Amino acid sequence: MIIDCHGHYTTAPPAVGEWREAQVAAVIADPAFVGSKGTMAVTDDEIRESIEGAQLRLQKERGTDLTLFSPRASWMGHHVGNASTSLFWSQHQNELIRRVCDLFPESFAPVCQLPQSPGEPIDFSVEELERCVVEMGFVGCNVNPDPTGGMWTGPPLWDDYWTPLWEKLCELEVPAMIHVSASTNENFFTTASHYLGADTTAFIQALTSGFMDKFPGLRWIIPHGGGAVPYHWGRLKGMAADKGWDFDSLMQHIYFDTCVYHQRGIDLLLDVVPTSNILFGSEMIGAVRGVDPDTGRYYDDTKFYLDNAAIDETAKKLIFSENALRLFPRLAVVGENR
Amino acid sequence: MIIDCHGHYTTAPPAVGEWREAQVAAVIADPAFVGSKGTMAVTDDEIRESIEGAQLRLQKERGTDLTLFSPRASWMGHHVGNASTSLFWSQHQNELIRRVCDLFPESFAPVCQLPQSPGEPIDFSVEELERCVVEMGFVGCNVNPDPTGGMWTGPPLWDDYWTPLWEKLCELEVPAMIHVSASTNENFFTTASHYLGADTTAFIQALTSGFMDKFPGLRWIIPHGGGAVPYHWGRLKGMAADKGWDFDSLMQHIYFDTCVYHQRGIDLLLDVVPTSNILFGSEMIGAVRGVDPDTGRYYDDTKFYLDNAAIDETAKKLIFSENALRLFPRLAVVGENR
Repeated sequence: MIIDCHGHYTTAPPAVGEWREAQVAAVIADPAFVGSKGTMAVTDDEIRESIEGAQLRLQKERGTDLTLFSPRASWMGHHVGNASTSLFWSQHQNELIRRVCDLFPESFAPVCQLPQSPGEPIDFSVEELERCVVEMGFVGCNVNPDPTGGMWTGPPLWDDYWTPLWEKLCELEVPAMIHVSASTNENFFTTASHYLGADTTAFIQALTSGFMDKFPGLRWIIPHGGGAVPYHWGRLKGMAADKGWDFDSLMQHIYFDTCVYHQRGIDLLLDVVPTSNILFGSEMIGAVRGVDPDTGRYYDDTKFYLDNAAIDETAKKLIFSENALRLFPRLAVVGENR
Repeated sequence: MIIDCHGHYTTAPPAVGEWREAQVAAVIADPAFVGSKGTMAVTDDEIRESIEGAQLRLQKERGTDLTLFSPRASWMGHHVGNASTSLFWSQHQNELIRRVCDLFPESFAPVCQLPQSPGEPIDFSVEELERCVVEMGFVGCNVNPDPTGGMWTGPPLWDDYWTPLWEKLCELEVPAMIHVSASTNENFFTTASHYLGADTTAFIQALTSGFMDKFPGLRWIIPHGGGAVPYHWGRLKGMAADKGWDFDSLMQHIYFDTCVYHQRGIDLLLDVVPTSNILFGSEMIGAVRGVDPDTGRYYDDTKFYLDNAAIDETAKKLIFSENALRLFPRLAVVGENR
């Protein structure tokens, strides 16, 4: 059993983009535009087609059994419009993920996006999380640590602002992947400096504040191999020792995925981060689409790097499935219902 | 000969901080406050004392011959006050560095900070760079890619705003270390997420824009081992191939220092980055002050990691001195004048 903890629906049918474009145009014309949820005219056949020739084909080729599948991250766009904009868009995106998982229940388990919106309370996100998990069988969610889209003018993750969301995640036993969306700040490139910077930032916010200890059941996945964190493991452990931050306690709450697209990077991750804190992930089909001329494999074929890594079978089992099954208790429920 | 390319004067005598505190208080009371440069009452004995028991003692213990020494980075504070605030403060800080190097000419070579100020033209910085290099014998400078102090609301490094500075650096044959200062944004911790995020951001700005090719002589040092870049070497090479960015051309302009505070991180850096693009650096006495219990050595004793790395003597010579002597042509002039 091989579980990819990090996949986004990046190949959605055209009607999805058309719905969003119309919504964005309306809210640009009138920032207070509310509109209605309306309908997204996507057929089951269109969904099948968008999945079978892309994500599912690659899963089969690479030998991945199940992907934790969420809406396209760069498209969440929480900075766009107002609270209603994010709410309707998130509901549609999550319902689309539910349909993908209904059509391919053996291959996908659903992870939701949240209708975050800068300056608005977190309440809508808590409600949508509950709807997705309780009513629709979702097993995880993505939380954007910077819904301002690269402006970083919102409250840090240790701020009380987030408390209702952390409490609900604990109550539902659902982990959160901390994943930003598109950058509107021209200083940051979305899938490079913004993603990697945000990963590092989320970890450091948790480390410096120690706030996660207030939520014993709270679990985060830091994507993209933890940003800069494993490469600077010594720096961060040293700073923690200097400042009295509890590094080991934090690691009770944190998991890193394996979305690091070369062998040396994966080897470093495996060397410094405890095996129990690593989850297999590829983020295909995502930021890097090409083939590495040095290996002849897709850059994002992270299973290839793990297969070649100097770790034993016990470690591989933990990383490929057992850690994920422990971290996502609702995944077992999904399996039983299949 | 062992050259540490990255040292800041973090142990300056108390009068330096007192001067700055008075200046900051005045500009808080009146944002348009100009004041005057005034004097900073620091004696040679105070400088000797602040260096001999700290930076110089550690250099001798660790076997470093020469440090490229600049004002404390987190103290540059370009976001504070107005153009005059930064100008007077930078002039004092640079003159102090000159005095350190005059007192210990065998052990330190001077690197300046620039009087950057958000929303102001780069002209003052160009003038201070010229003063430091031409009149005062400085060999390098630090450029803050985010003088807004973690708000990231200024122009990216590829913007025409910076052109006069890049041109002057080329004309003077002086490389720039791209190094942020303190973060005023509570989302970012200065010496962790802000430093590492800015390192990654600077590299990505150069990679995505290709602007450095317009300045053939422009050379940057990306500190802290390049932020997240070497760990995500595959991701960035893959994105470059997808998008048509010229990764190899960029690497004609870029150097990474070795301020990575554990053996595994240094090993990764040495594995993926060409040896000709790596400079020995420690950033002592800096962000991490303690001893790693696993090694019994200071976390920031990066020479220890390099001594233990699986590289040959030729590579060590390049990293410890030859790359720096090539990158800093004015270092040879300093040596001849000793």
